[in-house]
Amino acid sequence: MSTTWLEFLKKDFVQGFPAFCGFKVVRVDYCKFETSLKVLKKHRQQDGFVHAGVIATMADHTSGYACFTTVSEKFRILTIEFKINYFKPAKGPLIVCRSKVIQNGKKIKVVESEVFSVSNGIETLVSKGMFTQIALAPDSFLKMTGEY
Amino acid sequence: MSTTWLEFLKKDFVQGFPAFCGFKVVRVDYCKFETSLKVLKKHRQQDGFVHAGVIATMADHTSGYACFTTVSEKFRILTIEFKINYFKPAKGPLIVCRSKVIQNGKKIKVVESEVFSVSNGIETLVSKGMFTQIALAPDSFLKMTGEY
Amino acid sequence: MSTTWLEFLKKDFVQGFPAFCGFKVVRVDYCKFETSLKVLKKHRQQDGFVHAGVIATMADHTSGYACFTTVSEKFRILTIEFKINYFKPAKGPLIVCRSKVIQNGKKIKVVESEVFSVSNGIETLVSKGMFTQIALAPDSFLKMTGEY
Amino acid sequence: MSTTWLEFLKKDFVQGFPAFCGFKVVRVDYCKFETSLKVLKKHRQQDGFVHAGVIATMADHTSGYACFTTVSEKFRILTIEFKINYFKPAKGPLIVCRSKVIQNGKKIKVVESEVFSVSNGIETLVSKGMFTQIALAPDSFLKMTGEY
Repeated sequence: MSTTWLEFLKKDFVQGFPAFCGFKVVRVDYCKFETSLKVLKKHRQQDGFVHAGVIATMADHTSGYACFTTVSEKFRILTIEFKINYFKPAKGPLIVCRSKVIQNGKKIKVVESEVFSVSNGIETLVSKGMFTQIALAPDSFLKMTGEY
Repeated sequence: MSTTWLEFLKKDFVQGFPAFCGFKVVRVDYCKFETSLKVLKKHRQQDGFVHAGVIATMADHTSGYACFTTVSEKFRILTIEFKINYFKPAKGPLIVCRSKVIQNGKKIKVVESEVFSVSNGIETLVSKGMFTQIALAPDSFLKMTGEY
Repeated sequence: MSTTWLEFLKKDFVQGFPAFCGFKVVRVDYCKFETSLKVLKKHRQQDGFVHAGVIATMADHTSGYACFTTVSEKFRILTIEFKINYFKPAKGPLIVCRSKVIQNGKKIKVVESEVFSVSNGIETLVSKGMFTQIALAPDSFLKMTGEY
Repeated sequence: MSTTWLEFLKKDFVQGFPAFCGFKVVRVDYCKFETSLKVLKKHRQQDGFVHAGVIATMADHTSGYACFTTVSEKFRILTIEFKINYFKPAKGPLIVCRSKVIQNGKKIKVVESEVFSVSNGIETLVSKGMFTQIALAPDSFLKMTGEY
């Protein structure tokens, strides 16, 4: 992967819903993506914990961009499905997500994302998920009439 | 379930991250919860589709409140894990989510959430997920040192 | 779908591991497959319940053949991934599985399988799963060097 | 964990369906369980690959016994749910499964299982799954009227 492509992905990551949520890119490498979130009141659920949806969104988006590091700029990456487990409530004040492509098929890619709640520099693993992503070439993507 | 409890849940649903996202409650019944979202630019991902994280958050939060309809106000509901499939890109402009408890155990509850993209009154099923939730009595919840 | 194709699938279902397990075909239709198992001692786990693996195998194989009803005989169906929930112990003496294609993409198909424990004619839903299957054309299948 | 307990688990593993399938125990340690399978014709599916159900059964049963290493002999372990991804066809002639408890809650335990196809001493990762297991104390288990 060219450094230019990885630098592009760092910027491309932060747009739309992920920008709205406030995720930041920490580090990027081939097959790997790491992001962080400063937890605010708006990220919490009814008991004061970080909402499962914030964690799922972060884990999903970071996993998608880990896949982007494995393809050229001609490809689009879409989530086919994922499964995520929540181990304990995430309290913050910082959340870190690390994603890694564990099966780098040409079309079907499988990624693991680990999410940590960080307090006083101590990381606690609060969640882990497995994501199945599909890499679509431009023609498949254009022809895509709405199904994978 | 008392009407008072269901009315309370309708209001309780909209706070923190779900309020920030803009989800609205449509309808509530025993074991069932239905919500909607008017799709804005901030809900989209890099290709202009509704972000997988928006859909997952909506499906998760709605499934959790479907569980709340099955317990008294003394219980807390937390997501243990979920799996969600994305069938086709969701374009909006409206998204509707319907959740239903399909296994109503005392402690462990399993919920299905279906998410539809709605355009010109036509609903298209874009996503479906299965959610495992745990109902915690007040003492378990207070004693909970951070693990389920 | 031709009747010949559905009749062929009924026979094709019972071979290899599924034959070894003892699954039988009950009914076949477009997008649908139903199977049964007479529970023997060899199907149980350490507590005397039907083993989770028996249920997963039945749910997976039945879901795969539900997909076969949607393609021509030139295609192969392979499981990309699945998720299954166990609601309560399955005791038998009969197990029934009903699978249904809920997203019939050309390449990616999503299937739900419900598994029932049947005693004295009463069916109890003991398990439900979601399966993501891929339909591979002959050339993709031959070229397949070992990844999806 | 006492050596006696781990030795007991090695024997206890092989009974019912897993014995019928032919799984063997390779190695046991606290939070860890490793098993193997010599692939025979009866383990294959319609294309000659090891059946997804064999792999799921092995990954599930091995994950359950990884959990048994974390409890006393008074507890029972049952699978609440799992998700498994298939990366490439497993051909054998040997299959190895390694399970590890990654979240060791008192009640809810999360385990990862990796399944390898082994040929000429070369291991290929063909499948990975995440399993949510519940540890039930004797009274909960006896009282258990059929739901988790």
